[in-house]
Amino acid sequence: MSIIEKGNGVLTLINVFTVEPDKQRELAQLLIDATEQTMKRQPGFVSANIHRSLDGKRVVNYAQWESRDAFEAMQKNPQAAPHMKAAAALARFDPILCEVVEAVSTL
Amino acid sequence: MSIIEKGNGVLTLINVFTVEPDKQRELAQLLIDATEQTMKRQPGFVSANIHRSLDGKRVVNYAQWESRDAFEAMQKNPQAAPHMKAAAALARFDPILCEVVEAVSTL
Repeated sequence: MSIIEKGNGVLTLINVFTVEPDKQRELAQLLIDATEQTMKRQPGFVSANIHRSLDGKRVVNYAQWESRDAFEAMQKNPQAAPHMKAAAALARFDPILCEVVEAVSTL
Repeated sequence: MSIIEKGNGVLTLINVFTVEPDKQRELAQLLIDATEQTMKRQPGFVSANIHRSLDGKRVVNYAQWESRDAFEAMQKNPQAAPHMKAAAALARFDPILCEVVEAVSTL
């Protein structure tokens, strides 16, 4: 379970992968494995939430890091590189660094 | 506060808006207003979470609906149309309908 809220200083990375539908499942599993094996042990990791699009053409990772510094330190970590190379071999990706400006919920 | 979790049957809409940086703030406010004034009163609304990209070029709405049927009913509701037209006048958008396949968190 992950929480989206405003004003907590978290860096959000929304990474949209465009993939051939017959590779969607493989890409999603690769991102799950990367998270379980490497990312979740990096300092400042908060969450990674892997989504598959219903049309088969996208995979989206909605990820949270404690800060931009923590995210950039992870990117420089050689342990992260093989996973990102494997993802790049399967899909184009468009990483968007953001912050929450409003969260409206029925909760 | 919104919650991301696997296996709850929620439909996730990740809508990535591409905008001129000098219109980013206006677009984000438009989406917040649309949520507060209309969307949150529609049957099956769960959450809308508006993000601004740090580079100024995107706004992302991470929204949740109880089901795909609820989402499609909202799209047919004439109350939703003016907001979507106003957003389309400011930005290109790329709506992605998805489901969560894995949520990994330190929570």
